[in-house]
Amino acid sequence: MASSKAKVLLFGGGGVGTITALNLEAGGLTSVTAVLRSNYNTVINKGFDIKSCDHGTVSGWRPSKVLKSIPLTSEEKFDYIVCTTKNVPDCPPTLAELIAPAVVPGHTVIVLVQNGFNIELPMFKAFPDNIVLSGVSLIGSHEVQHGVIEHDDNDRSFIGPFHNPRLDPAKEEAAAKEYVKLYSASGKCSCEFTDDVPFTRWRKLIYNACLNSICALTGLDTGRLRLADDLVDSLVRPAMEEIRAAAKANGVELPADVCDFMINLDPVTMYLPPSMLGDVRKGNYTEYENILGEPLRAGTALGVPMPTLTVLYHLLKAIQWRTKEINGVVKIPPKESFVAK
Amino acid sequence: MASSKAKVLLFGGGGVGTITALNLEAGGLTSVTAVLRSNYNTVINKGFDIKSCDHGTVSGWRPSKVLKSIPLTSEEKFDYIVCTTKNVPDCPPTLAELIAPAVVPGHTVIVLVQNGFNIELPMFKAFPDNIVLSGVSLIGSHEVQHGVIEHDDNDRSFIGPFHNPRLDPAKEEAAAKEYVKLYSASGKCSCEFTDDVPFTRWRKLIYNACLNSICALTGLDTGRLRLADDLVDSLVRPAMEEIRAAAKANGVELPADVCDFMINLDPVTMYLPPSMLGDVRKGNYTEYENILGEPLRAGTALGVPMPTLTVLYHLLKAIQWRTKEINGVVKIPPKESFVAK
Repeated sequence: MASSKAKVLLFGGGGVGTITALNLEAGGLTSVTAVLRSNYNTVINKGFDIKSCDHGTVSGWRPSKVLKSIPLTSEEKFDYIVCTTKNVPDCPPTLAELIAPAVVPGHTVIVLVQNGFNIELPMFKAFPDNIVLSGVSLIGSHEVQHGVIEHDDNDRSFIGPFHNPRLDPAKEEAAAKEYVKLYSASGKCSCEFTDDVPFTRWRKLIYNACLNSICALTGLDTGRLRLADDLVDSLVRPAMEEIRAAAKANGVELPADVCDFMINLDPVTMYLPPSMLGDVRKGNYTEYENILGEPLRAGTALGVPMPTLTVLYHLLKAIQWRTKEINGVVKIPPKESFVAK
Repeated sequence: MASSKAKVLLFGGGGVGTITALNLEAGGLTSVTAVLRSNYNTVINKGFDIKSCDHGTVSGWRPSKVLKSIPLTSEEKFDYIVCTTKNVPDCPPTLAELIAPAVVPGHTVIVLVQNGFNIELPMFKAFPDNIVLSGVSLIGSHEVQHGVIEHDDNDRSFIGPFHNPRLDPAKEEAAAKEYVKLYSASGKCSCEFTDDVPFTRWRKLIYNACLNSICALTGLDTGRLRLADDLVDSLVRPAMEEIRAAAKANGVELPADVCDFMINLDPVTMYLPPSMLGDVRKGNYTEYENILGEPLRAGTALGVPMPTLTVLYHLLKAIQWRTKEINGVVKIPPKESFVAK
């Protein structure tokens, strides 16, 4: 019985990953092995404590199997590797390097439930014969302490193939639809197949490239950002219109009301901190290169003026540099004293 | 003997104000009464401990008189009120309201040793018959704890009159030159008279509107900002060129090399935190309206494109709003729970 289940390796057991695992196993068609890092010991000892707007309160829950590191293909062959970690290409090791040991060439389907643009390209390069799927998630779920998950905004996602020119589009599409079936089986989420990944990605960037970036730089969550003076009109909307123009230049026509939709996506009084603000607060690296840098380069390369996002990008780059310095990745000359000379 | 000295009321005994008081009294022509706020008790008990690149190490120093609040003109009449506090017009009480009790109409000369643009206008309005002088200081001096001053970059300043159309320019000029005499008497600083205050103000804005703002938003001091990747070229220089263009539109021609001069003003390894970064770190209000908002409005009103500074301005406005919320000055609706609904 268990052997007939699809075998999923989940990489990243934070707020999004844990709900992904819970929902996949709730559907009954999937067996999930989770690779955990910071919360491994907690989850081994006590399991996850989850308060979920979709799944209710669940205590001491664990996926079928919990590992401390990526397994080798010689140990177990997975049908899917679902990646829900942060994706920070400017701070090695890269995601492709991390998951490589578990990828069975030509078999394992890689699902990137991650933010940003062009994130499939390093996968195509490292795993040229593997199907790579795009997962665009609108979930609100946070690990508030190790193993404790608060899931307060419904799990809605769009799955579709990243088209790899080397592979058969029909097989890519079939793999995406199969994953949607596995993920939808719980009946507790909204998971749609999309054959237009660029559209769903650019659409999500309206939120991420703008709200994530501005919140990370100002320390304000999305609720406060909407309450504070005229910030939505002076900063958020101009930034979003730049993404919409970049999308258009790249062949993706986003509707004019997409900006209002994304601004009003979450209730104000949820005071939702976008992931990048959470990262800055925790002193973690941010995904600014995938979330902001890639769409900025894709737009400016085609001549789209993106003055707002250009400034946000360089400010976030400076903050990433600061985090690298704190982590000892970049070194600077020692401070000299100029006092009482 | 003491009665022949000029009577200065100093408002603001932080890093800049304390060195200002020390230098004025060192010159022997001035008697300084300092109004202290946060460090009043410390200075009353122990005096200031100062390490100064201009004055050497000085322990337990106090100006002639130390007060806890602005005195009334009925208590003492001052020849000068020298203001070295932060100037935050968007967070009342305003500077004019604070110093009003000590201003003798038509007599007291008000010296604003403060950053920013258009700071004389509220003074002209509140004190129409008083001469107002501009002090542009390039000093590096910080109060590292209450009463402890580290002065590590030489005291260089430019004094000149803010021209009030109601007053006699010759008298304004004479007052400025008199103050330069008092301030230069120590022989330990560089204090120059300038008859072109707009030039010195716009020149200083090249530093303040740009380095202050970018450092405050990124958490980097000026040394790190120069070491971090390509931040000087990608962000600092474009911002500075926008100020230079705004100055030009307002009739002030700054030399092309002023940007490089300001970028390289302090040694990298001093790792100097501009005042606004210090304010953000301490959770204080920043002077972003005078330092960035006023020149931005002065430039854009004349059609100068200032895309970089526009974004920096709105981000700093958001941070000011956050500080106001933390201080209880703005109120927001309570957080609602959306978990396990």
